[in-house]
Amino acid sequence: MTEVTVVRLYLSEGEAQLDSLMRRLRDWEKLRGLTVFRGISGFGDDGVIRREGPVRLEPDLPVVVEFFDTPEKIEAVLRHLQTEIKPGHLLSWTARINQ
Amino acid sequence: MTEVTVVRLYLSEGEAQLDSLMRRLRDWEKLRGLTVFRGISGFGDDGVIRREGPVRLEPDLPVVVEFFDTPEKIEAVLRHLQTEIKPGHLLSWTARINQ
Amino acid sequence: MTEVTVVRLYLSEGEAQLDSLMRRLRDWEKLRGLTVFRGISGFGDDGVIRREGPVRLEPDLPVVVEFFDTPEKIEAVLRHLQTEIKPGHLLSWTARINQ
Repeated sequence: MTEVTVVRLYLSEGEAQLDSLMRRLRDWEKLRGLTVFRGISGFGDDGVIRREGPVRLEPDLPVVVEFFDTPEKIEAVLRHLQTEIKPGHLLSWTARINQ
Repeated sequence: MTEVTVVRLYLSEGEAQLDSLMRRLRDWEKLRGLTVFRGISGFGDDGVIRREGPVRLEPDLPVVVEFFDTPEKIEAVLRHLQTEIKPGHLLSWTARINQ
Repeated sequence: MTEVTVVRLYLSEGEAQLDSLMRRLRDWEKLRGLTVFRGISGFGDDGVIRREGPVRLEPDLPVVVEFFDTPEKIEAVLRHLQTEIKPGHLLSWTARINQ
């Protein structure tokens, strides 16, 4: 088991940055993997509760980007992302991975 | 980076409490954000494996409510929720957020 | 509050192992609960960015299996799974559950 830092970034579908962020994390930061999840409901800074509709008409559902890597690499990634991620929207913690 | 406590609550779609829980966490507890995820499959206390169908006919898929805030605030929230959340259905751990 | 170990396993829908893995974790390892999430996008070892289509045509979306239990039980589960989970695809960390 090796220590890694796990990151969860809280965005919303309305934010256009997701695609460029994914490419950047893959191509520049050389992350080995990344997963994006969509919430079915939630609220954020504006306090509006958003919900998935019958055919997903709601365009602003919460989106979470999750990835992990060595503490050193993640530290560098977070430094590079610093100006782009809203305060309080990036969570990180220490975990272990299998080898 | 500031320390926060992250919470994940494991419910199922069948439980009617989700909507009132979200409003309560927003209006009374003044949480700044919250995200609800639906699993595509899983099992819980009854041991029945539930799965997303072609048009999501399965009404009892697992649902996870995720939020985080300062350790003090979350401690109070968990105290308030204590009688409503089934034992073993609320997970919490310490993480860091960006500022 | 009791300490548990949380596990997140990163697979993809293409991997046939999900169903047998769930049954095994339920029937042999006697886990009390487990949730499977599907990502809407992501990339893994092959570096290909996969995305949910309008009717989910993409068959290889990321899938995450999440469960938690006592540290001793999870340690045994991870030992049993050791040869089946690709290196770097199993994350675990310590959290607390309500009682």
